Amino acid sequence: MELQFRLRQLFFFFFLLTVLEQSYSARILTISKPDRHDVAASARWLVSQNIWGVLSTLSIEHQGAPFGNVVSFSDGLPGKGSGIPYFYLTSLDPTTRNALKDARASFAVSESPIGTCKRDPMDPTCSKLTLTGKLVPLDEGSEEEEVAKKALFTKHPEMMDWPKGHDFRVFKLEIIDIFLINWYGGAKSITVDEYLRSKSIKVSSFNLISELSKR
Amino acid sequence: MELQFRLRQLFFFFFLLTVLEQSYSARILTISKPDRHDVAASARWLVSQNIWGVLSTLSIEHQGAPFGNVVSFSDGLPGKGSGIPYFYLTSLDPTTRNALKDARASFAVSESPIGTCKRDPMDPTCSKLTLTGKLVPLDEGSEEEEVAKKALFTKHPEMMDWPKGHDFRVFKLEIIDIFLINWYGGAKSITVDEYLRSKSIKVSSFNLISELSKR
Repeated sequence: MELQFRLRQLFFFFFLLTVLEQSYSARILTISKPDRHDVAASARWLVSQNIWGVLSTLSIEHQGAPFGNVVSFSDGLPGKGSGIPYFYLTSLDPTTRNALKDARASFAVSESPIGTCKRDPMDPTCSKLTLTGKLVPLDEGSEEEEVAKKALFTKHPEMMDWPKGHDFRVFKLEIIDIFLINWYGGAKSITVDEYLRSKSIKVSSFNLISELSKR
Repeated sequence: MELQFRLRQLFFFFFLLTVLEQSYSARILTISKPDRHDVAASARWLVSQNIWGVLSTLSIEHQGAPFGNVVSFSDGLPGKGSGIPYFYLTSLDPTTRNALKDARASFAVSESPIGTCKRDPMDPTCSKLTLTGKLVPLDEGSEEEEVAKKALFTKHPEMMDWPKGHDFRVFKLEIIDIFLINWYGGAKSITVDEYLRSKSIKVSSFNLISELSKR
């Protein structure tokens, strides 16, 4: 009887642990990993499933040295990503000031935070993606800014409460080049067009999407 | 009785889940998060507890645009970090070629993968660190290369099996500047000297360290 009681105690402990791990403020839909041969879908999956990455710009403060900065992002509503990463950046942050002077930037994400890597984060089977392009602010009040804000605030509800006085603005990365490693054999060749047109992401829960889309 | 059986089944499921999550190939010691007022210790903690980050260089291929790349790293044996990030890079990778042409680089890590963030990855309470400096190869056969290899291979045992023909070499980031956000109020001021001298990391398991150090 005591053993059963202990087992139950342990069960509740693990249950609590799992619930706590899931109850993160940012909302994301779990979409299964695409076939590795579909390289465009693999790249889009990394962007749709991650909620943060590292955005690199050319540092004003350090005479043009590269400056990587951890940032949250979103490419669309959960399960409805466009592949274009949108950011909510303040001019108090060096990345924003760098980008407004020289828009050249890159954005890197790893499969590691998604939780599907079985090996070392640098093993080629643990996918990684770097999008190179131009980091540009969206016109305030524009239709795209509206869409981007919805994309950002759905995955990052806390952003809605960020201080109004901190001059937050929506930026996007206009993608010029795609660097993807998702298996052995070096970087995979994907054009920006193939990446943006990729539709092969399979969503595992349609109910959750429709629920989230209503917000 | 059936309920008990189901409970047990569920318990084993969560147990398995937890074990799988922990049985990662890379080895790291859990060290508790330092007091936020000790900014140097906070920065050192982020470096000692993470096993991967984004290393940014100036792209040859994209005419000097910043290129962030997901990489594994180590700053020392578990619990005995030096604060200096070491990398094991191949010349097949653009980051290596970029660095050998222009050593200017930065390395960014987030608190997010450590699992201690309670809010959005971009909330200032979820710490982030960018080390700016020069990415230089270590002399082959040097004492520092020996130390760095031990540091890398202990946290990333898979590296020992990476293809010999891929020209892997040990690099380090010679730190020039430290950008840390670990609370509200903008980036914290830390000198490189304060960062390197910080000893205030409290290790939670001495047995595990001594066990790992023996390897």
